Amino acid sequence: MLQNTTPLSDGFFMPGEFEPQRGCLMVWPERPGSWPYEAREARKAFAEIIRKIARSEEVFVAVSEKGEASAKELLSQVPNVRLFRAETEDAWARDIGPTFVKNKEGLVRAVNWEFNAWGGAYNGLYASWEKDNAFAQFFAREQGYEMYEAAPFVLEGGAIHSDGQGTVLVTEACLLSPGRNPKLSKEEIEQKLFLYLGAKKVIWLPRGIYNDETDEHVDNFCAFIRPGEVVLAWTEDVNDPQYEMSMAGLRVLEAETDACGRKLLVHKLPVPEYPVCVKEEELCGYSFEEGEDTREAGERLAASYVNFYFSNDAVLMPAFGGENEESDKRAESILRKLCPEREVLPIPARAILLGGGNIHCITQQIPLGRTR
Amino acid sequence: MLQNTTPLSDGFFMPGEFEPQRGCLMVWPERPGSWPYEAREARKAFAEIIRKIARSEEVFVAVSEKGEASAKELLSQVPNVRLFRAETEDAWARDIGPTFVKNKEGLVRAVNWEFNAWGGAYNGLYASWEKDNAFAQFFAREQGYEMYEAAPFVLEGGAIHSDGQGTVLVTEACLLSPGRNPKLSKEEIEQKLFLYLGAKKVIWLPRGIYNDETDEHVDNFCAFIRPGEVVLAWTEDVNDPQYEMSMAGLRVLEAETDACGRKLLVHKLPVPEYPVCVKEEELCGYSFEEGEDTREAGERLAASYVNFYFSNDAVLMPAFGGENEESDKRAESILRKLCPEREVLPIPARAILLGGGNIHCITQQIPLGRTR
Repeated sequence: MLQNTTPLSDGFFMPGEFEPQRGCLMVWPERPGSWPYEAREARKAFAEIIRKIARSEEVFVAVSEKGEASAKELLSQVPNVRLFRAETEDAWARDIGPTFVKNKEGLVRAVNWEFNAWGGAYNGLYASWEKDNAFAQFFAREQGYEMYEAAPFVLEGGAIHSDGQGTVLVTEACLLSPGRNPKLSKEEIEQKLFLYLGAKKVIWLPRGIYNDETDEHVDNFCAFIRPGEVVLAWTEDVNDPQYEMSMAGLRVLEAETDACGRKLLVHKLPVPEYPVCVKEEELCGYSFEEGEDTREAGERLAASYVNFYFSNDAVLMPAFGGENEESDKRAESILRKLCPEREVLPIPARAILLGGGNIHCITQQIPLGRTR
Repeated sequence: MLQNTTPLSDGFFMPGEFEPQRGCLMVWPERPGSWPYEAREARKAFAEIIRKIARSEEVFVAVSEKGEASAKELLSQVPNVRLFRAETEDAWARDIGPTFVKNKEGLVRAVNWEFNAWGGAYNGLYASWEKDNAFAQFFAREQGYEMYEAAPFVLEGGAIHSDGQGTVLVTEACLLSPGRNPKLSKEEIEQKLFLYLGAKKVIWLPRGIYNDETDEHVDNFCAFIRPGEVVLAWTEDVNDPQYEMSMAGLRVLEAETDACGRKLLVHKLPVPEYPVCVKEEELCGYSFEEGEDTREAGERLAASYVNFYFSNDAVLMPAFGGENEESDKRAESILRKLCPEREVLPIPARAILLGGGNIHCITQQIPLGRTR
């Protein structure tokens, strides 16, 4: 654990997700309050995602004692997958895993944030999160990555996107929520991002995706596809509450330049045309603990195509199916044009969205590089 | 050695150089007829290139018994560099190394071409090339890559560029030269490229760079920067013999579509404004063998900025300096705009050009992926 320096002082910075990766960290799903019917559908979706990522990078999958049998059944034949034993509260590797930084000599290190289940006592989504909070440090130690300690600063991996060249995207709704770092000013929070992501500029989008229980993580709303270019979740429907949220983001992006002084090219990526809502029959499959945020039938889920994952050779894009089949195709066609160097793979992701996030939320990239 | 199948029949194809790489193969320079004054300046330039590539990928450097001391002196402190003993005729890893192919499951294999020193008895550049011709197979075996045997088909790595999606760029001047495969028709040569590069379409550019002694390899003239986009060596000087050669390339590229049916976006990359020529004092440093192509004072070298190398985090661009400093800056600025996800690193490369090639010619990328 590196206690007396920061990534910034040591010349480390967070690379873009579109840069070459060593691998991807994931957690096998299990929590009954997130994944209905013993995570049956969720595990199928996770396994499909793991298979697709493992084509071009190593996938490290944390598995609990209880989850081991199903993980082995679905994954043991897949090359490039490494199962390892770890107990966690849930399966959001993006938010509980380390954030990785690298330097110009190809050395990779980890950053550990304080994790409080997206808001702690204020509006956190579960009552205890000790195992989740210990997970990043455990994984970094196991894999031999030196680690910077950013705690007690509270942050999740889904709350940030980096262009790899000094620019970080966040939302005010999330980073300024009283559940994270209520004693820090916006300027002090920005300073933390500079220090621990080696960043030079933070672009603050006001809002994220409507009804996103992470306080509107940026990774569901806006993402770099390369330096100078972003995709932004969009709708043309002025009656949708998403409309004003997306417009507010667009206004900021069009007025801003990045850390290198470039104007940003903004590509609109329309959200599914029909709201994706929890169904009565799905609701029966959940089993909620005391203190845990619950779901209701008809509740609108935070469906967005921006929640994709860049693997070394593909874009794993959430697909929602059903009445949104046309929307899925539109998103696929947009991403295919924007990312010609990767194969765009739509993955049926309703089962993951029912847990409260999507493909980007359950993955955490590990940049290619040396640990020493 | 895989004798009864081809990359095409096994679902393997040549990835784009812009895709994530495991490493880079190079050869430490020594040949007295290529590298004047005991390769002193060339070795400095090679070492600088190796250091820059090793930031983001492993560099495998073949070193002869005679070259070992200088290689160790200049490289032993650089992390990510692996020196290994091999005897070769010269240092053109692009042309004597294997070409690597991969499949959709992340498996990487090698392809072995017949090498005849760029033209054999017809117009080859040296009298014997046995060691060079054995090098690809030696390296693939050492590193555990399964290998396809394309010999007796004659080809060099510098004669092809792939977009990773089924399109291959070549020049007619090179591939149809009587020194390569005189008994094969253009269609038969195209078939070989389909079979061994897993390609679906070959785009034939008529010519390459003026006075290029490789019979105008495409890698000095035109390169993919991503699928659907190429850079093309260019001049606006109608009196330069390069003008018609570049125009001929442009006409083909503007009329063609790639294997996916896309129109190609062509970016012009102007060659150095002032011809780069061999100087009298440099000429004294060479020592030519019998049967070897020689140099003359005032001879124009095939200087082009297209002969760059994509490492995982950078574009290593040849810089010629002196009166071409403005041209260097122009090329750097164009590449920086076209490749925002990589750092553009101009490398003083006159010492390499004196050997007859440039940065791309002395490097051979190894795609990221498994050997088994």
